Amino acid sequence: MITRRDVMELGAGAALTLSAGGVLHAQPGSARSVGYAVVGLGKLSLGQILPALKATKNAHLAALVSGKPEKARKVAAQYGLPESAIYTYENFDSIAKNPAIQVVYVVLPNAMHADFTIRAFKAGKHVLCEKPMAVSLEECERMIAAGKAAKRQLMIAYRCQYEPVNVTAMQMMRKGAVGTPRLVNAVMGKQTDLSDPSDVWRLDRTMSGGGALADMGIYGINATRYLLAEEPVDVRGWARTDKSDPRFRTVDDMVAWQMRFPSGAIGEGSSCFSQPGTMAWQVVGSERRMVADPACFYGGNGIRILGGKNDPQPQIAEIDQFGNEMNWFADVIHGRAPNVSPGEEGLQDMRIMHAIMQSLAQGGQTVAIESSYRRAYDPATAVGIRTAV
Amino acid sequence: MITRRDVMELGAGAALTLSAGGVLHAQPGSARSVGYAVVGLGKLSLGQILPALKATKNAHLAALVSGKPEKARKVAAQYGLPESAIYTYENFDSIAKNPAIQVVYVVLPNAMHADFTIRAFKAGKHVLCEKPMAVSLEECERMIAAGKAAKRQLMIAYRCQYEPVNVTAMQMMRKGAVGTPRLVNAVMGKQTDLSDPSDVWRLDRTMSGGGALADMGIYGINATRYLLAEEPVDVRGWARTDKSDPRFRTVDDMVAWQMRFPSGAIGEGSSCFSQPGTMAWQVVGSERRMVADPACFYGGNGIRILGGKNDPQPQIAEIDQFGNEMNWFADVIHGRAPNVSPGEEGLQDMRIMHAIMQSLAQGGQTVAIESSYRRAYDPATAVGIRTAV
Repeated sequence: MITRRDVMELGAGAALTLSAGGVLHAQPGSARSVGYAVVGLGKLSLGQILPALKATKNAHLAALVSGKPEKARKVAAQYGLPESAIYTYENFDSIAKNPAIQVVYVVLPNAMHADFTIRAFKAGKHVLCEKPMAVSLEECERMIAAGKAAKRQLMIAYRCQYEPVNVTAMQMMRKGAVGTPRLVNAVMGKQTDLSDPSDVWRLDRTMSGGGALADMGIYGINATRYLLAEEPVDVRGWARTDKSDPRFRTVDDMVAWQMRFPSGAIGEGSSCFSQPGTMAWQVVGSERRMVADPACFYGGNGIRILGGKNDPQPQIAEIDQFGNEMNWFADVIHGRAPNVSPGEEGLQDMRIMHAIMQSLAQGGQTVAIESSYRRAYDPATAVGIRTAV
Repeated sequence: MITRRDVMELGAGAALTLSAGGVLHAQPGSARSVGYAVVGLGKLSLGQILPALKATKNAHLAALVSGKPEKARKVAAQYGLPESAIYTYENFDSIAKNPAIQVVYVVLPNAMHADFTIRAFKAGKHVLCEKPMAVSLEECERMIAAGKAAKRQLMIAYRCQYEPVNVTAMQMMRKGAVGTPRLVNAVMGKQTDLSDPSDVWRLDRTMSGGGALADMGIYGINATRYLLAEEPVDVRGWARTDKSDPRFRTVDDMVAWQMRFPSGAIGEGSSCFSQPGTMAWQVVGSERRMVADPACFYGGNGIRILGGKNDPQPQIAEIDQFGNEMNWFADVIHGRAPNVSPGEEGLQDMRIMHAIMQSLAQGGQTVAIESSYRRAYDPATAVGIRTAV
């Protein structure tokens, strides 16, 4: 039903509605445009999110929340925001009185996600929260409960679940492009630097909840799950950390994991904080192999199909991934799109990562995943039900 | 010292000597050409080894040994061999009386390697034996002992240890091209078919000693070891096998392993008998990533260097890998090249694979590798000492 072209159109930033005949049409979105308060002015906000909000039709910047007033004023000026739209961590709760804000986008260190998410719900706002969702299962559960109590949407910013390359890969997987999946391998990593403030908190277990596994491994774990469309039964891990490296005083460097799935498929992968930027996965199937390398960069991702004879290679146009994601959440709020990655989805990855960490603490023992979580919406087909909710 | 060009020249099939000035010169090899008796006329012999022997300067076909007389006669005629150069499994020991045979190349099902290797040594011949070396550690040890007793060379046919792409990769690893190695991932596999006689024995544990792990996994395990230039401390595995698939009555289909190395590097990989032909590895290092995909095919292999800025990409010419390997062993016999992959090297992989199988039998428990094995020669530098032995 949903073609690659649809995915690309989706990516172009237009709001889409599915007519009775199943044809996608762009709608003028500005009237419905949703106001975002961006909390946290780190590298991700400045480099990706704020520029994307500027270019996006259905979402716009309505406020900034920062612990650094001077930086906030500078950024506000740059984006044409009045001083009244700048909040501090202390007066953040007063966003309740600002109707221009409908969504709070939490782009803070992981240990601050739960607090700001719950405060945002108390202020009556919807929340888009960066991944990993929090630093403990208990926090995740409180965040979900707070959203339900406030009758507001919580979406975890799983960018790749809304991104054309990964969505196309999922669609191809569902259509059997690789045959029966045997194995998913993921290699994730980046070079961390203690002189970079946005890495300092990532290297502090209290703030990040778990170093390379929580920060980059989550992409590999999430991809394995959405590629296979099933949930792991058990997991285990081995870590490798040079404890003399000042970066790794509290967090592991390299974590390598294995996961087993009900179908028999095996997931393996690694995440490392002392290697060049890498976000790659591959699926080994009974008929073909699907390789994405890079798979989850902000641009330049692609899929190669190997092992068949003259298989067409998907050519997938790039989009503004952050703009697309924020547009999608705008549609969620308007009831025109499914919330593909709600809090429960973030909680499931947290369960898996915590099980891997538990395994590491137990010398690599296998740890069962105690969860009956099933996705409410498959991101492979969510584009097609975008107006059906 | 040894440049890529040297490796390519080496691969061109010429015998090389290292002059006092360190310059490599080709020597006419025909006077030294070594006579090979090829034992077993399966797909590998017919498709690769016999054609390679025809094209190779320092090795030539001297005899065929087969359990199928008619097939042997047909092949002998094709390669211009007289009937007197055809042996059966029964009269094989009479090769002792044939001075035209210097090497016996054992290309039989794995369970037959030990017997024919030991008989060849008793007949006074040198042995090139396909990998995996045998089906048990005890067999490997008897093969090594028999070679020593006979004062004859035993080389295990680790084609990739003599192959330019893999040798270049090792040389680059030793020079620190990726920085400190963090992880090696290997993905190996192929599609087995019960209607193909050369697969039937591979799918019979008694004959193969262990299905996909022994047949294809060995490439990944061996590559991990020669890329890292160290030996694993412990290993573990998980298997996934559809026991309703008639191919997998006695052997596992997919085996996924993890290995830990003294440096802290982690090896992970998989081997599968129900996927398209795949032989790929990648090394994640602190500075760069090195990807070979395909890595171990008979042709078309290559390396990509990722993660740096404008790194030159190695362009490595292809060679006849089987001819090169047989030439090398001819040089070993003449005392002009080191035996880079002797029986002890084959035994080490057997130890590791048996430890992985033990892990599988114990539900994935970690199994220590009890071995002080160290390579006598690093295949990365063996080209440079080819005349120094």
